[in-house]
Amino acid sequence: MTELLQEQQTESELLQKAKQAKQAAATLAKLTTKQKNNALRLISAQLLEEQAYILEENSKDVEQGRQNGMSDSLVDRLQLDQSRLKDMADALVQLTKLADPVGEVLEKWERPNGLTMSKIRVPLGVVGMIYEARPNVTVDASSLCLKTGNSVVLRGSSTAIHSNKAIVAVIHRALQKSEVPVESVQLLEDTSREAASHMFKLNQYLDVLIPRGGAKLIQTVVQNSTVPVLETGAGNCHIYIDETADVKMAIEIALNAKTQRPSVCNSCESILVHKTWADKHLAELLSALQDKQVEIHGDESIQQLSPTVIPAENADWGTEYLGLEVAMKTVTGVEEAIQHINTYGTKHSEAIISSNSANVDQFFMEIDAAAVYHNASTRFTDGFEFGFGAEIGISTQKLHARGPMGLPALTSTKYIIRGSGQIK
Amino acid sequence: MTELLQEQQTESELLQKAKQAKQAAATLAKLTTKQKNNALRLISAQLLEEQAYILEENSKDVEQGRQNGMSDSLVDRLQLDQSRLKDMADALVQLTKLADPVGEVLEKWERPNGLTMSKIRVPLGVVGMIYEARPNVTVDASSLCLKTGNSVVLRGSSTAIHSNKAIVAVIHRALQKSEVPVESVQLLEDTSREAASHMFKLNQYLDVLIPRGGAKLIQTVVQNSTVPVLETGAGNCHIYIDETADVKMAIEIALNAKTQRPSVCNSCESILVHKTWADKHLAELLSALQDKQVEIHGDESIQQLSPTVIPAENADWGTEYLGLEVAMKTVTGVEEAIQHINTYGTKHSEAIISSNSANVDQFFMEIDAAAVYHNASTRFTDGFEFGFGAEIGISTQKLHARGPMGLPALTSTKYIIRGSGQIK
Repeated sequence: MTELLQEQQTESELLQKAKQAKQAAATLAKLTTKQKNNALRLISAQLLEEQAYILEENSKDVEQGRQNGMSDSLVDRLQLDQSRLKDMADALVQLTKLADPVGEVLEKWERPNGLTMSKIRVPLGVVGMIYEARPNVTVDASSLCLKTGNSVVLRGSSTAIHSNKAIVAVIHRALQKSEVPVESVQLLEDTSREAASHMFKLNQYLDVLIPRGGAKLIQTVVQNSTVPVLETGAGNCHIYIDETADVKMAIEIALNAKTQRPSVCNSCESILVHKTWADKHLAELLSALQDKQVEIHGDESIQQLSPTVIPAENADWGTEYLGLEVAMKTVTGVEEAIQHINTYGTKHSEAIISSNSANVDQFFMEIDAAAVYHNASTRFTDGFEFGFGAEIGISTQKLHARGPMGLPALTSTKYIIRGSGQIK
Repeated sequence: MTELLQEQQTESELLQKAKQAKQAAATLAKLTTKQKNNALRLISAQLLEEQAYILEENSKDVEQGRQNGMSDSLVDRLQLDQSRLKDMADALVQLTKLADPVGEVLEKWERPNGLTMSKIRVPLGVVGMIYEARPNVTVDASSLCLKTGNSVVLRGSSTAIHSNKAIVAVIHRALQKSEVPVESVQLLEDTSREAASHMFKLNQYLDVLIPRGGAKLIQTVVQNSTVPVLETGAGNCHIYIDETADVKMAIEIALNAKTQRPSVCNSCESILVHKTWADKHLAELLSALQDKQVEIHGDESIQQLSPTVIPAENADWGTEYLGLEVAMKTVTGVEEAIQHINTYGTKHSEAIISSNSANVDQFFMEIDAAAVYHNASTRFTDGFEFGFGAEIGISTQKLHARGPMGLPALTSTKYIIRGSGQIK
């Protein structure tokens, strides 16, 4: 097949499915909460009913992945089993219990000329989802979009294509029994780079793109899309231990933020310690971290305390290790800590451990991040921990939504104005 | 000078000013409302004090524009006089009276684990403004950004460079007397395309880009920026006259929306008329429009009524005339009207004139636009008419802000979490 022909076919699958999604979105936007929840329950039941089929298709992806030398951790993300499917089915039922943001009246007021105005929440329209190997994102994205009245165009990884096709077929069979149009969930079977590149520019049909995956995927989407992007970015999160920090609390929080689940974006990557606190308690903190097999990249003052500390290079301050490694540095006070965090951080989650309320206030005011903590672990930056009941991702951008995104992040607004003949 | 050298210099002015703006933003974010309002009052006074200087510099741009064959309407936008400067100075004082969104607590709640969470408004950081000839945008953008605690990097047109340099010099002299850093308002003196192109990609220093100007400028920014854009787009606005529309009201609203100020984005570009209403009242509507010198592009049923109606082509349904022209079409009902508007509209402002509440509800529900009106002119889509007291522009995108944007559109949010040692 010539390259041109291939490109035309690529475009035609995407264009056709994006158009169908857009048409379906108009119907979907009019459905009641009850109708949407009913569809979610039907999908939940269908997933369980057809679990043998889904697992069989998933095993093809897993086998192929192993043959192609996929790492164990990636195979683990790819692989489904009965318990994971059960979790996915349960999450769908949980989602029916959350408030539907669509139709919510956010503001209502009257103007002196008698116009009454209201601002109501409406669906975004069509969401484009670009993600990596995990097939649970297929269910997750489809259901969150459905609940908020949005169609979705899914572009998963080629390594999960059997799983994704099976899951979307099952979703479609469930939707056939519901009032939600089957066309509101679209999966691109063409997982080529070209298809993704066309998605980046499809402003006519896609209202937003959401990348889910590694930093490289997200940056590719951000740097190439003209469709607006909801950026769910990297987390180079810091714990700053102030002069007056409670010793036990500081060590517990640092350990938790670093080691409880080091592979996630809200885990801690750098620990900054006030010099005075360090003089008394740094040895204790270091040995607590080393007991948990954490490799420490430290500045000179940290190196002096332990022969196993690796000298920190400049690059360490900006590194998201996502593993049992941490960068450590002593600072002269909250000013220097803020300066360091605002220079090297990724505006995700930052914490101060302190008993000095003026320092806490300054940290809250001056740190530029989505979530700023006092005396708590950064690991709480999460839609469920925030009480949102669902999470689309954690936004590290400043427009539209910042921090954990619940259902309202998948909505826009519309002004409704009622008059009686007003002219200007 | 070689191209490479030129490019380096281009980048260096932009980079240097963007860095200064970012540094200033950190100081600006900490200022009180009183300190910011004081600076706005100082700028207002300085503009009046130095009006002779500003008008002299402005006259250089006007003269150069005339020499280069600039159209009268563009010269009119470019030219300043005492009265326009007085308006700008007054607007600055008005702005001090508006509520400061920064620091506003939007939500506050407690989690079962004892974490208390609040969501507060914070400045965006650094706003990049790319705009065309009108020098009043220089004052406007600077003051709205200052009020919301944002630095601004201004990139105006080369045709207004003397005016813009004079205005920014005056702003700087005012800021020197205030607590607002002078570096928070930056003007790029290099008005080349290259400088603008570098702005599009300056994600490290710019938090948002706002293009203000014609459709071409806006599309260039949208299609080339990796920095998030607040899109203030075109308005192909419709008036739909339903079967039960009050005749006098419908004609008054159509005339107002079309002719009161045809060059603006919220003016009407297409009128859709229900067949039954048309049978009785279309002739009256046509002659009212023609009395106001409106040129009509009509479908066959419209053409039959007047020999001066120009046959509408398909392109007319999507045209933003921005002048005394209108596209007209009869439709069989609200369904067809909605279908037509959602196909050809630009999601800006759409109105239904009707006495049938079911049709009005359907129109409100199904029209995909920032502002949807019943029995009122689309000309009200405007931050001042909405009661916001200020306007950054009218957003036609769905993320972050939709419709007229007041001060809160120039802010982001931050979660503040207070704990007592919580770990996960």
